[in-house]
Amino acid sequence: MRLASWNWGGRDHVGTISPDGREATPLGVRDPSLGALPLIRALAAGEPLPLPSGTRLPVEVITLRAPLPRPLRSLFCVGRNYRAHAAELAGSVFRAAMPETDPWPIVFGKLGECVVGPHDAVRLPSPAASIQIDYESELAVVIGRGGRDILPAHAMDHVFGYTVVNDVTARDVQMRHQQWDLGKSFDTFCPMGPWIVTADELDGRATRVRGWVNGALRQDGQTRDMIFDIPTLIETCSRGITLYPGDVIATGTPSGVGMGLKPPQWLRSGDVVRIEIDGLGVIENRFE
Amino acid sequence: MRLASWNWGGRDHVGTISPDGREATPLGVRDPSLGALPLIRALAAGEPLPLPSGTRLPVEVITLRAPLPRPLRSLFCVGRNYRAHAAELAGSVFRAAMPETDPWPIVFGKLGECVVGPHDAVRLPSPAASIQIDYESELAVVIGRGGRDILPAHAMDHVFGYTVVNDVTARDVQMRHQQWDLGKSFDTFCPMGPWIVTADELDGRATRVRGWVNGALRQDGQTRDMIFDIPTLIETCSRGITLYPGDVIATGTPSGVGMGLKPPQWLRSGDVVRIEIDGLGVIENRFE
Repeated sequence: MRLASWNWGGRDHVGTISPDGREATPLGVRDPSLGALPLIRALAAGEPLPLPSGTRLPVEVITLRAPLPRPLRSLFCVGRNYRAHAAELAGSVFRAAMPETDPWPIVFGKLGECVVGPHDAVRLPSPAASIQIDYESELAVVIGRGGRDILPAHAMDHVFGYTVVNDVTARDVQMRHQQWDLGKSFDTFCPMGPWIVTADELDGRATRVRGWVNGALRQDGQTRDMIFDIPTLIETCSRGITLYPGDVIATGTPSGVGMGLKPPQWLRSGDVVRIEIDGLGVIENRFE
Repeated sequence: MRLASWNWGGRDHVGTISPDGREATPLGVRDPSLGALPLIRALAAGEPLPLPSGTRLPVEVITLRAPLPRPLRSLFCVGRNYRAHAAELAGSVFRAAMPETDPWPIVFGKLGECVVGPHDAVRLPSPAASIQIDYESELAVVIGRGGRDILPAHAMDHVFGYTVVNDVTARDVQMRHQQWDLGKSFDTFCPMGPWIVTADELDGRATRVRGWVNGALRQDGQTRDMIFDIPTLIETCSRGITLYPGDVIATGTPSGVGMGLKPPQWLRSGDVVRIEIDGLGVIENRFE
């Protein structure tokens, strides 16, 4: 199932997208402004999918919102989760990192208030705030059933589904504060979508993540190459911390970010970043 | 004004505490389970204080909750903001930090879901999760009027008031993930209270923060000794990021944490941590 959130006719809706990605069917949910979050909670609690409510529509006529336009809290985000990306930033972002044999993932937070839709504009900050804006194409895990101290062997039972995020980053801000949350959380810095594909239709452990800037392929990774796999990430984030339905874990980005190029290339006004994950879909956002 | 959240007679209430700290007067608010958050939003929008509603009560008979039992999102938390604390952890937590001349504060996130009340128990995690639990006595700024790119000269106009937090930390978890959010966000790891004192009654820039473990004074700091003062912290957190009414900025801890002792002393079951801020009040939490 593909679960989406959209605006049509001046109102918010939550519903399903047909397998070919062409048709949107609204569901009868109480507060569609919250996107799929209440529905994920209800489904995780064992309630049935609400009945269709309203006209089926071509996807071209609706305006897709992020499936979780206001996540319940900060996204759990993973740094340095692909070896080639660890290598490309070894001298900058990861300069303080322990050797590659380090058995612990890097996990930071990204404020949920910076989430925008799959085709929304990302606002470049003033040059006084940052001059090093970068993209990170990522598979994001959406938690279904919550829990604490989840063991890897049971972790996949807690996955509701997957979505695409662009973990937009102000590299200068990320670096200078040592802790990364601020440089990751500027307003509009988290394009998300185009929808959530449920775990019965996609195995996030074996798919392909690609990212383009202005049509040029920059990132091309296989999620099976993650240093810390999805069960390990769920174990890590839930150790001592209760996860809730709708929590999001962004699983890290493959190599090919702008900072890793020689010389680095930062995003500029008018640039378009497109991210595609096989079996999931595409988000495409203009920076302005 | 002292704004508090409490439970009495099996129901949640929000109201004011008398200047002598002895009497609680409930106010007519719509959803008291959310604590003072909706009230801060309303006051920041220029609405008047709601009228008293219900019986005035002695503070001894009520159960104080955190004034913001579920903050709207992660707390902005500041690391290394007192020189003596920077020195005591120079070889461990701050080993990757830049020289003392570093002009940027360290800011990380602490999940709002770990907030507990001013006298609630803090749950020690299983030894498999952490064996290095530590306290951090801190003054927390509560934002009133929101905004983005707030200049230091205007920053104090955005302060609604102040409260006390214990930024409880699993040091081993904090260190091993390099980014600190996980080790700071275990369930129950943020005692907060006993109430919010509004900015017209307390200047957070000139008060005293003390912390005791089992009655022994461990921390004793003056907020005027902060490396980065409150206006600078507000400028930092709002650069590119919209702050909202009810946002919390925990301003960092003075020296005297358990990790800084030689040898380090970790909290154990039965330990009681008491934090007092002059002009504000006391929180006291048992670890179990």
